[in-house]
Amino acid sequence: MNIRIGYGIDFHQLVEGRDLFIGGVKIPHDKGALGHSDADVLLHAICDALLGALSLGDIGVHFPDTAAEFKNIDSKILLAKTYALICAEGYKVVNIDASLCLEAPKIKPYVPQMQEVIASILAITVKDVSVKATTTEKMGFVGRKEGLVAHAVCLLSSS
Amino acid sequence: MNIRIGYGIDFHQLVEGRDLFIGGVKIPHDKGALGHSDADVLLHAICDALLGALSLGDIGVHFPDTAAEFKNIDSKILLAKTYALICAEGYKVVNIDASLCLEAPKIKPYVPQMQEVIASILAITVKDVSVKATTTEKMGFVGRKEGLVAHAVCLLSSS
Amino acid sequence: MNIRIGYGIDFHQLVEGRDLFIGGVKIPHDKGALGHSDADVLLHAICDALLGALSLGDIGVHFPDTAAEFKNIDSKILLAKTYALICAEGYKVVNIDASLCLEAPKIKPYVPQMQEVIASILAITVKDVSVKATTTEKMGFVGRKEGLVAHAVCLLSSS
Repeated sequence: MNIRIGYGIDFHQLVEGRDLFIGGVKIPHDKGALGHSDADVLLHAICDALLGALSLGDIGVHFPDTAAEFKNIDSKILLAKTYALICAEGYKVVNIDASLCLEAPKIKPYVPQMQEVIASILAITVKDVSVKATTTEKMGFVGRKEGLVAHAVCLLSSS
Repeated sequence: MNIRIGYGIDFHQLVEGRDLFIGGVKIPHDKGALGHSDADVLLHAICDALLGALSLGDIGVHFPDTAAEFKNIDSKILLAKTYALICAEGYKVVNIDASLCLEAPKIKPYVPQMQEVIASILAITVKDVSVKATTTEKMGFVGRKEGLVAHAVCLLSSS
Repeated sequence: MNIRIGYGIDFHQLVEGRDLFIGGVKIPHDKGALGHSDADVLLHAICDALLGALSLGDIGVHFPDTAAEFKNIDSKILLAKTYALICAEGYKVVNIDASLCLEAPKIKPYVPQMQEVIASILAITVKDVSVKATTTEKMGFVGRKEGLVAHAVCLLSSS
């Protein structure tokens, strides 16, 4: 068995007039994440962790924010495309653990749905994808509600 | 053998009038970490990494900062409770690696004691738990000494 | 087979009048990273991940920024010294995944060269070392171009 580790991090500003998508789920909030795609900070961090584990470049290489085809795209499509790249290398996902840093809103009620969305795309169970959340205790740009950050790690294996 | 990866991050403000606990060790300093419990940023990040590896939720789910029972609680107790959850799933800790980001105080003299405390609770050796530290080179809220951050990763295995 | 996980993070200010070294590569830019050594944020994060995986302390313990011998030192030398410590413990590198957070310059053109430098020192292939990059969307000290951050994770194994 070959095993590989990956890590991803992503940042987005929170602004008025945008929907907030996190983990493939639309979350009611007075602000949304700014970006070229739907700006799903969690799915982007997971994409980067998966790509990084196999040294396949990063999300900016595969899905450039200058390409019209990715304008406002649903990041679940980006995750599915990333998963196809992993499979093409003969790897599968062992588990993913992610941490969101954001001051608001509370995302706990939406975590089970996020897990289902992500697990479904990556052909794993909901027990193989973890989504955690923390505030930054009012410090920094996250604490001032200017933006949000996601960190994700993954293990991949090939038989 | 099943193997799993986990990642945790935690933030606390540094304020006057509080004791500073890091890694289960009380460290002499003119400020302490603000929080509902003893605000041990390192133990909290490790708890979250362990929980995340098995998709058991996060520290806020298990030990909510609104519960009177966790008011000023010693975070070593939270780590022990977390370890019990890991064991109940049939897993043990392979190794933990953590990084503290703080401008002051220097924590190097206390690292061996932190390793002993953590290793003892998690039934591993001191060689299986690493505690590193860095400043943020005076940048951001850590650089302004407003707070501190801990990152932790872990590997778990089941036989 | 024994397997271990490591994580490293490093920060440096960006200032005028310094060369910018990232991943062992000199990158043309109007600012460089400030530090005692050549301030290579990526190689430092990787050193810390490797050291942390085996609980060997951190880069500040092995290469203190108060020691004259490390003044302006090429961080490739620090990575080679770190690798020797890993080998002495009977471990080798499985893979490394790193993420740079910086607003400018674009590092994508230099990534293949960084991979070659790092892989060569660590006796792995370029497919075993991943270097990704992201901005922080203009937020925080990275967004204001005051500095840059690197995160790195690694897996090590011993036979």
